Amino acid sequence: MKAVQYRTIGKGPEVVEVEKPVPGPGQVLLKVTAAGLCHSDELVMSVPDALGYELPMTLGHEPAGIVEELGQGATGVEVGTPVIVYGCWGCGVCEMCAAGKENLCLRGMTSPGLGSDGAMADYMVVDTPRHLVPIGDLDPVRAASLTDAALTPYQAILSVLPKLHGGTTTVVLGVGGLGHVAVQLLRELTGTRIVAMDVAPEKLELAKECGAHEVLPSGPEAAAEIKKMTNGRGANVIFDFVGIDKTSELALACAGYESHIVIVGAGGGGVKIGFLNAPYNINVSTSLWGGRAELTELVTMAQRGQIHVQTRSFSLDEVPKAYQLLHEGAIIGRAVGVPSL
Amino acid sequence: MKAVQYRTIGKGPEVVEVEKPVPGPGQVLLKVTAAGLCHSDELVMSVPDALGYELPMTLGHEPAGIVEELGQGATGVEVGTPVIVYGCWGCGVCEMCAAGKENLCLRGMTSPGLGSDGAMADYMVVDTPRHLVPIGDLDPVRAASLTDAALTPYQAILSVLPKLHGGTTTVVLGVGGLGHVAVQLLRELTGTRIVAMDVAPEKLELAKECGAHEVLPSGPEAAAEIKKMTNGRGANVIFDFVGIDKTSELALACAGYESHIVIVGAGGGGVKIGFLNAPYNINVSTSLWGGRAELTELVTMAQRGQIHVQTRSFSLDEVPKAYQLLHEGAIIGRAVGVPSL
Amino acid sequence: MKAVQYRTIGKGPEVVEVEKPVPGPGQVLLKVTAAGLCHSDELVMSVPDALGYELPMTLGHEPAGIVEELGQGATGVEVGTPVIVYGCWGCGVCEMCAAGKENLCLRGMTSPGLGSDGAMADYMVVDTPRHLVPIGDLDPVRAASLTDAALTPYQAILSVLPKLHGGTTTVVLGVGGLGHVAVQLLRELTGTRIVAMDVAPEKLELAKECGAHEVLPSGPEAAAEIKKMTNGRGANVIFDFVGIDKTSELALACAGYESHIVIVGAGGGGVKIGFLNAPYNINVSTSLWGGRAELTELVTMAQRGQIHVQTRSFSLDEVPKAYQLLHEGAIIGRAVGVPSL
Amino acid sequence: MKAVQYRTIGKGPEVVEVEKPVPGPGQVLLKVTAAGLCHSDELVMSVPDALGYELPMTLGHEPAGIVEELGQGATGVEVGTPVIVYGCWGCGVCEMCAAGKENLCLRGMTSPGLGSDGAMADYMVVDTPRHLVPIGDLDPVRAASLTDAALTPYQAILSVLPKLHGGTTTVVLGVGGLGHVAVQLLRELTGTRIVAMDVAPEKLELAKECGAHEVLPSGPEAAAEIKKMTNGRGANVIFDFVGIDKTSELALACAGYESHIVIVGAGGGGVKIGFLNAPYNINVSTSLWGGRAELTELVTMAQRGQIHVQTRSFSLDEVPKAYQLLHEGAIIGRAVGVPSL
Repeated sequence: MKAVQYRTIGKGPEVVEVEKPVPGPGQVLLKVTAAGLCHSDELVMSVPDALGYELPMTLGHEPAGIVEELGQGATGVEVGTPVIVYGCWGCGVCEMCAAGKENLCLRGMTSPGLGSDGAMADYMVVDTPRHLVPIGDLDPVRAASLTDAALTPYQAILSVLPKLHGGTTTVVLGVGGLGHVAVQLLRELTGTRIVAMDVAPEKLELAKECGAHEVLPSGPEAAAEIKKMTNGRGANVIFDFVGIDKTSELALACAGYESHIVIVGAGGGGVKIGFLNAPYNINVSTSLWGGRAELTELVTMAQRGQIHVQTRSFSLDEVPKAYQLLHEGAIIGRAVGVPSL
Repeated sequence: MKAVQYRTIGKGPEVVEVEKPVPGPGQVLLKVTAAGLCHSDELVMSVPDALGYELPMTLGHEPAGIVEELGQGATGVEVGTPVIVYGCWGCGVCEMCAAGKENLCLRGMTSPGLGSDGAMADYMVVDTPRHLVPIGDLDPVRAASLTDAALTPYQAILSVLPKLHGGTTTVVLGVGGLGHVAVQLLRELTGTRIVAMDVAPEKLELAKECGAHEVLPSGPEAAAEIKKMTNGRGANVIFDFVGIDKTSELALACAGYESHIVIVGAGGGGVKIGFLNAPYNINVSTSLWGGRAELTELVTMAQRGQIHVQTRSFSLDEVPKAYQLLHEGAIIGRAVGVPSL
Repeated sequence: MKAVQYRTIGKGPEVVEVEKPVPGPGQVLLKVTAAGLCHSDELVMSVPDALGYELPMTLGHEPAGIVEELGQGATGVEVGTPVIVYGCWGCGVCEMCAAGKENLCLRGMTSPGLGSDGAMADYMVVDTPRHLVPIGDLDPVRAASLTDAALTPYQAILSVLPKLHGGTTTVVLGVGGLGHVAVQLLRELTGTRIVAMDVAPEKLELAKECGAHEVLPSGPEAAAEIKKMTNGRGANVIFDFVGIDKTSELALACAGYESHIVIVGAGGGGVKIGFLNAPYNINVSTSLWGGRAELTELVTMAQRGQIHVQTRSFSLDEVPKAYQLLHEGAIIGRAVGVPSL
Repeated sequence: MKAVQYRTIGKGPEVVEVEKPVPGPGQVLLKVTAAGLCHSDELVMSVPDALGYELPMTLGHEPAGIVEELGQGATGVEVGTPVIVYGCWGCGVCEMCAAGKENLCLRGMTSPGLGSDGAMADYMVVDTPRHLVPIGDLDPVRAASLTDAALTPYQAILSVLPKLHGGTTTVVLGVGGLGHVAVQLLRELTGTRIVAMDVAPEKLELAKECGAHEVLPSGPEAAAEIKKMTNGRGANVIFDFVGIDKTSELALACAGYESHIVIVGAGGGGVKIGFLNAPYNINVSTSLWGGRAELTELVTMAQRGQIHVQTRSFSLDEVPKAYQLLHEGAIIGRAVGVPSL
């Protein structure tokens, strides 16, 4: 079968022919229908040690597919079921997994495309039926990205939901693959006023289409604008989907008393927090991916028409080019590899 | 000046001429611009002891007005400011008041129109400037009802906000003066699917206009419908804005595991709750009016165009007739007395 | 092997010889070291349909044991490990299970001793390694009851933990197998003042030993006493571990504004809740058993010496008599069946 | 009367004779019984602009006293009542004050001894009766410090209370005037295992007396010790009562997944937080003083014998020397000025 793999450190993604995998005991084989591309893939391919992952590795941690074959003893799902795959493959036994937080598995989670073979191929193996979420008749191309591009901002929003009451103002920094879904989710899930910031005017356009009430070019004067909009109080919640020093520092500059900054972007930066250099009673947290129960909630939301991940489809052969476009910031919304194209 | 008073037990509201009041030390005189009518007024006028209130009493606990005169030592507000009045007049000193919950004042709150003279008159006295909330250029007729018809469902919704995440289903029982605002607020503040129930078809129409996703005639078969809509799980949250046995029991019949019923309606009924006669880990709470900080949040929401209380205006002379219509269930939305008419 | 079974409706528990069970694929065989007795077992044996469970059924849903044999494909635990068993055997796949709440499994959980064969025997089979919690060198007789007698009050307490801040007063109704652990847990986990109530003086004694600050004979005058202790405010939280009409009504009589009643006891009763017949902003909830992550937290607490379940041991042959004593209210603390005796 | 004032920038506290103040309308005059000394006073006296406060200014923001005289129109308290003073004097009108958070007053709070004349004198004026909390027969010397040395850690603990469930580990960095009360409060209010860290051995001794389960010399190897104690997971909650770079960085080094660092100390430092340089889903917040309702809860706790602020009394004449000792780290617990000595 065809697969897009990261094979050699420093060399970028390659389209290759590999053996169709066979599901082991308890595992499930999927015929892949769609697989989202993500900045995290880029991160893996840009660092000298590939985050320690063994190569070659098939990329793709946002999978959609159809159940093709059940390994011995795998139960709870039928062949032919259209599904998406929860990507945080925890041990299932530790305290975190016991609480449904496989993304924080104490024994260390693995993920398809981030440590084991992923979804950017004709077929993929999923470790256990519990990581499958049925999607009914949702379009798999749009549903694939629920698994990360929607789940990640969704967990971030849930973590501050009680603070997003009426009359609040929220800043979204970075309107990329995750940020544009964050804007939609905030609009659907809360009554907060949403101010989106980005350096690219076309992403501010996308933010408006997704429901942002206001958009601002990212930059130092943006914080002053936020203070003005809020009669000096500052924003209540700020999401940083970029995570470089510049954006995290901008987040702090927008913040007011009791505000909350959620850093989601793995940009390698951050911001210094102390009692005297931040508004009183500030809260700064980070947020990694999400829980399995939350993914089922997103599927319900998508079925109700509340989420529309903006996608651009690529055949597996085009995926390397798509990563290039992603790197250049030239993808609006989410790029998705589609084996059937 | 003209005032609509409850003067004699059993006799209903009367329009009378009384002395224009004078603000005492620390108090504020308002020229009334609007005053909402409420089922609670009816409750006072229907029970044999008028809830123990001293008569005659000017009605009206949803006041809007313009600051006319400041009593000695009253500070923090300017003459000429348009305001609405927070109606839970607590002691300001007890633990509940210290936490901003004057609606639960341990020394017993009083309210304009519910214990002391209210807003259904040309002028009214407010006990302290801290109970005034400036409204800028909001229409006072629509703003008046924020003080109760919006604040009451708002507190009820805030009390369960973390449970109103994506993929949930919420039932609103009773689409009257409070219920129709509840539907709007739920639509604005959450991503839940809203199912409104009422016995009156025209109120179900109103619910749809306010944003309900589904409407159902209230009755025993409604619960079965909810179970069907939710694949057998039942609703996540149910608001009972009626509060008679029939509605509270219907609420329980709609409820699922871990669901939450909020009883807001003072209909005199309720529902029996025990471990074996309710879905596991159910939560049932009651909710009285709201806090002062929440009222300021609602004003911000109204200024942003997120709340539209449906109103029907009456001159003070027409107010007794308006109470009659309210009693007959013939008011759509909220009836408001307007002295200038 | 020896097993205590419920075999015939209406006939009570019987000690019998049965085949030693064999673990199926993915299952685990335990050599039982201890098995707690519970009022729920009594409930099963007292209703005409045995709650619909298939008979004969080995009793015992509070198991401790040592891993004896792993079924095919069962991984994550070693033979010889001392464990206790999480008793809420959910599907592991549904939304509730995904969130770690197998006690609320949407497909219906089963439990050892409550639907499938339990722990009151020399050996038992556990459905999956994820339901085992290692206990290190904890005494199995005391550890067994962590699985229900401690887990059930622990979840109930966690559900109201933010309300149990400084200066609060909490009532514990019923100082039996669960209630006496609740008192200990409240003392360890919170700074609330604990008032225990029971009809039996010796159980009030036990409550004192477990850390109750005050004890009161259960009855109508107890509520007046609570009001007096709290300067008229009423209790902040009330746990009802009995769950008959009398206790739930007493709970309501003790309650204050914004208070919370948690009904844990499956006594078949309850209390009517409405806007006008309860203190403002009351909260009433029920609580069933607990989550798996919480059980691991209890094991840690027990290892730190923070929980001491009071136990009385019985050989398997004596277990029928022990159920009789339990029925008569003559057990102080928790009765435990110990196969090795 | 005698007063300890900060009069000249750079010159330190001076004992002087000043006029006995007269309460204005709505104000209250107290005869001071005790006034705590705090590192914040030192901060004021060490920066070039005295934080912008007008001088001379009487020090002391932890007041206890007896109501001596009521200003015109001041109501709600009787002459002769022993009280302590809530030190966050907000406007009482803004949204934060409306929610009981005068410590975050949007118009800027003032405090006695931090902007207006404080309690380190024979008499003091309090701006309004709502800032008085009756203490009954509590010892004023110990009760004075409830207003800050206890209220500040109490709010910090409340902000993370739901995370302090069973089986958790909490680090307290800095066992000074606030930290030693934090240890007591954690022991009373939670079941967490408390590990106290300080550079001074005698403060670790104090921590043990206050209930710390473990103590460790503060330093880089302390983090490794925490990891060892927690099987590699790290602490759940870390309180930093120092707030210099070294302690905040140590806090981060002790932290685990989903942990929470609360920075209380105004030491001028902090720690950089980003997605990649902290354990996943970390939370870092700051905490300033506390709310008025919380202070009443502390008074109840003190009356129940749950808090024992360690104090060392000084006459007003000795207070300058006491500040010197405080500066040198030579005060164990809290230094208190007592006018009657």
